[in-house]
Amino acid sequence: MAKVKKAPRPKAITPKGFRDYFGAEVSERAQMLQQIAGVYHHYGFDALESSAVEMVEALGKFLPDVDRPNEGVFAWQEFDEHDKGDWMALRYDLTAPLARVYAQHRNDLPTPYRRYAMGPVWRNEKPGPGRYRQFYQCDADTVGTASMAADAEICAMLSDTLEEVGIPRGDYIVRVNNRKVLDGILEGVLVQNDKTSALPTDFKTMMESKASDWEFVSRDAVLRTIDKFDKVGAEGVTELLTTGRKDQSGAFIDGVGLSQLDADKIVKFMLSRGQDNKETIANLRTLIDYSEVGMEGVDELEQIAALLEAGGYGPDRIEIDPSVVRGLGYYTGPVFEAELTFEIFDEKGRKRQFGSVAGGGRYDDLVARFTGQAVPAVGVSIGVDRLLAALREKGRIGGTETGPVVVTVMDRDRMADYQAMVAELRAAGIRAEVYLGNPKNFGNQLKYADKRNSPVAIIEGGDEKANGVVQIKDLILGAKIAESATLEEWKERPSQFEVPRGDLVAKVRDILAGQGE
Amino acid sequence: MAKVKKAPRPKAITPKGFRDYFGAEVSERAQMLQQIAGVYHHYGFDALESSAVEMVEALGKFLPDVDRPNEGVFAWQEFDEHDKGDWMALRYDLTAPLARVYAQHRNDLPTPYRRYAMGPVWRNEKPGPGRYRQFYQCDADTVGTASMAADAEICAMLSDTLEEVGIPRGDYIVRVNNRKVLDGILEGVLVQNDKTSALPTDFKTMMESKASDWEFVSRDAVLRTIDKFDKVGAEGVTELLTTGRKDQSGAFIDGVGLSQLDADKIVKFMLSRGQDNKETIANLRTLIDYSEVGMEGVDELEQIAALLEAGGYGPDRIEIDPSVVRGLGYYTGPVFEAELTFEIFDEKGRKRQFGSVAGGGRYDDLVARFTGQAVPAVGVSIGVDRLLAALREKGRIGGTETGPVVVTVMDRDRMADYQAMVAELRAAGIRAEVYLGNPKNFGNQLKYADKRNSPVAIIEGGDEKANGVVQIKDLILGAKIAESATLEEWKERPSQFEVPRGDLVAKVRDILAGQGE
Repeated sequence: MAKVKKAPRPKAITPKGFRDYFGAEVSERAQMLQQIAGVYHHYGFDALESSAVEMVEALGKFLPDVDRPNEGVFAWQEFDEHDKGDWMALRYDLTAPLARVYAQHRNDLPTPYRRYAMGPVWRNEKPGPGRYRQFYQCDADTVGTASMAADAEICAMLSDTLEEVGIPRGDYIVRVNNRKVLDGILEGVLVQNDKTSALPTDFKTMMESKASDWEFVSRDAVLRTIDKFDKVGAEGVTELLTTGRKDQSGAFIDGVGLSQLDADKIVKFMLSRGQDNKETIANLRTLIDYSEVGMEGVDELEQIAALLEAGGYGPDRIEIDPSVVRGLGYYTGPVFEAELTFEIFDEKGRKRQFGSVAGGGRYDDLVARFTGQAVPAVGVSIGVDRLLAALREKGRIGGTETGPVVVTVMDRDRMADYQAMVAELRAAGIRAEVYLGNPKNFGNQLKYADKRNSPVAIIEGGDEKANGVVQIKDLILGAKIAESATLEEWKERPSQFEVPRGDLVAKVRDILAGQGE
Repeated sequence: MAKVKKAPRPKAITPKGFRDYFGAEVSERAQMLQQIAGVYHHYGFDALESSAVEMVEALGKFLPDVDRPNEGVFAWQEFDEHDKGDWMALRYDLTAPLARVYAQHRNDLPTPYRRYAMGPVWRNEKPGPGRYRQFYQCDADTVGTASMAADAEICAMLSDTLEEVGIPRGDYIVRVNNRKVLDGILEGVLVQNDKTSALPTDFKTMMESKASDWEFVSRDAVLRTIDKFDKVGAEGVTELLTTGRKDQSGAFIDGVGLSQLDADKIVKFMLSRGQDNKETIANLRTLIDYSEVGMEGVDELEQIAALLEAGGYGPDRIEIDPSVVRGLGYYTGPVFEAELTFEIFDEKGRKRQFGSVAGGGRYDDLVARFTGQAVPAVGVSIGVDRLLAALREKGRIGGTETGPVVVTVMDRDRMADYQAMVAELRAAGIRAEVYLGNPKNFGNQLKYADKRNSPVAIIEGGDEKANGVVQIKDLILGAKIAESATLEEWKERPSQFEVPRGDLVAKVRDILAGQGE
């Protein structure tokens, strides 16, 4: 091999669309994942961690006929002398891997198989503000049962989970709809009714891609249009379903070409929510009485509503809502979405609702891709990073973390003494460390403690050592005094204490307890 | 776009060298990661989660001059019309990303920066039995200090961590050596003494690759040879360092070509461990008195030994041991390795020591790749999956998990009743679920409970409902009775109980408590 060329210095950056997480960001997420997993586990779900890397075919990616099948996913080819190596890819969700795992291990797994999974997923998409190419999901799915009790259970569990992580009742709503009801409506509307079964797992990505990338059947056009309901409202959707509409910029968006009657029918379906589930279901039955599949969908919603009512999950937590459109293309039966209902301020200072943090539904075709046999399944996916952002917005989690007690170094040769203090503090359950930087400049040591958000600093110089004492600085109180130095009450409270060396742990514990008040 | 071709059914398999983890495998690992992180955090380390994907250059991969820089890592090129997209790769350890993060964010981070990180890493290597291409690491590093107190602290923390996860004192040893001492020895031995600074972060991978892939300088040949000490012993290493050696298969391995005298010197260094650290350090001083860098290394070991002794970490936990060779090529100062000392049986039924589960050391050159400025750093990496395997070998963790209480379904129309029971059990803190499969065959429901490793099954048929009672089956006791059906004592203990519906939770709690005894 030739001598290595001296490479230019690499840039210290992440690839575009990726980022790092520090301190509280990591520990708060870890805690949330643990809370969510706790609820899932309590409901009888078992943990599964599939490999982050999958065969491209197993991911069920809709492969355009090109050499590099990496649209939407990060994919690469295994090295092979004849360039025939396997194509591998990072998972883009936790559902496609579940289908592969279930197909692969179905003889060893219980039926139904309840599993939960959590971890990062990767999307090869154009990054944008707050939109990353790696993010966390936390999913629960029940594979192998067609019973609506499974769907109802997952809705109930989603509700319990949101409350467990700190979203109080009233600040969220789980809304339930059914793809079959929409199918029923469309039965009476569409002539060209191509089944989209060739793209079962990829529909979500298709929905997010530009229309010009694809040749859509008109069912898809309808689905894409009603997905804009939240944005353009009933009137806008009606225009888009019929003759077209001018958008905010003045550009004209072509319509799908339905008749006014058909468009009204679809919009009426989406607006058919009544005062309660009973009324909603009655409305749907009236709209859809001509369609067998539609009535089947309404029956399913009715079963779910009954089970939830029996479990005490009222409309303050979960309700049937035909305006839920997200996932109606992807799923095959019930769909549900958890929305946070409190208002936040967006980047332009305008009030808006926080919106969706979780979604799911029934998908009965995924496993069949591998085995040829349909396996009914239903699941939910929580967008962990969005949920964390919501809790931060509400001030329910801090976003910062208290640092360790810092034992400063006054005398470099007595490092063992300082290590002994730290060991005592740790043994007493107190997070602590000795300052390990250059101890020459004492100010730097206090600056360091400040940067770490440390609650307490310990000081033992030569005099203290000789007198058998240590100085203990309350850094939180010290900061408060510095902020409001004019207030007499602060001035009277000392923020530094001299105590006998033997009382070190007890005094630190006192101060920490006081700070927690 | 043309109509999609109907693809053949994909195989339900993971890519070669990847695997899935189920149930207890996942939860036991999660628990261990949490325990390790707990100790790291307690020592003052802050969490960091860097992106799993890095720029290839940032990973410090030793790039051969080829188009596809994916030897050793999984790498791919970002799509770009002009084929000039960035090359990205999955991280192969947690240290290279730390160097990138520190270089990128050093103005915002405290100095020294103590951080811990955990997560999967990926290696594009040939998979083998028990050797996977994705595995977990859990690292702690202190960046920005040259103080030996940082090295000593990490050794102490490693010892605490092993005990925290369930390896008792006496079943492990943390062994400490120093690259500088070896450098001192080699100073007197080698003429051709090329610095290997062009390959700082990749040496580990190089050490694991075939010799024929690389052109080694003779320092590397020496390092690779002494790395075989564990395998071939002192005599074998001496032969390999000089004229060569026949291996077990009879094939002749060429020697490195050192003189007998030089080889003896190196082997003597590796065997210089004395009765205690004091004696070991004295031995090293005698061996190396001619070398400045060597004496510096011995001084460092002496400082570490003193700090550890002051902290109460005796030779039953941590000791200086010049026979540690792993990482001597990679690190620049002290190196350490945690070895489990208990014996296990290998796949051929032979007794052997479990071996290494963690390693680390000082690497002062990593950040300089980005910034040009040397930043001293020291860290440790725990091989989480190996440590889990060790605990399983010792029976310290179960490898299986108790399933949920299963409420069986006798009457499909009363699903709400069964859901209510499950809700009560869950509210009482008991993991529980209703059977969601086809309820027609009751035997299947009990088989399911068995497969889930469920402790208790609940039965409420029409008669029970009419009489206001439920049947509760103790499945653990039932299994025991079935196993030893001839024993009268078992026969007398009933494994099924009829209790009033209102006593359901109390009775289940009783049975679970009894099973835990």
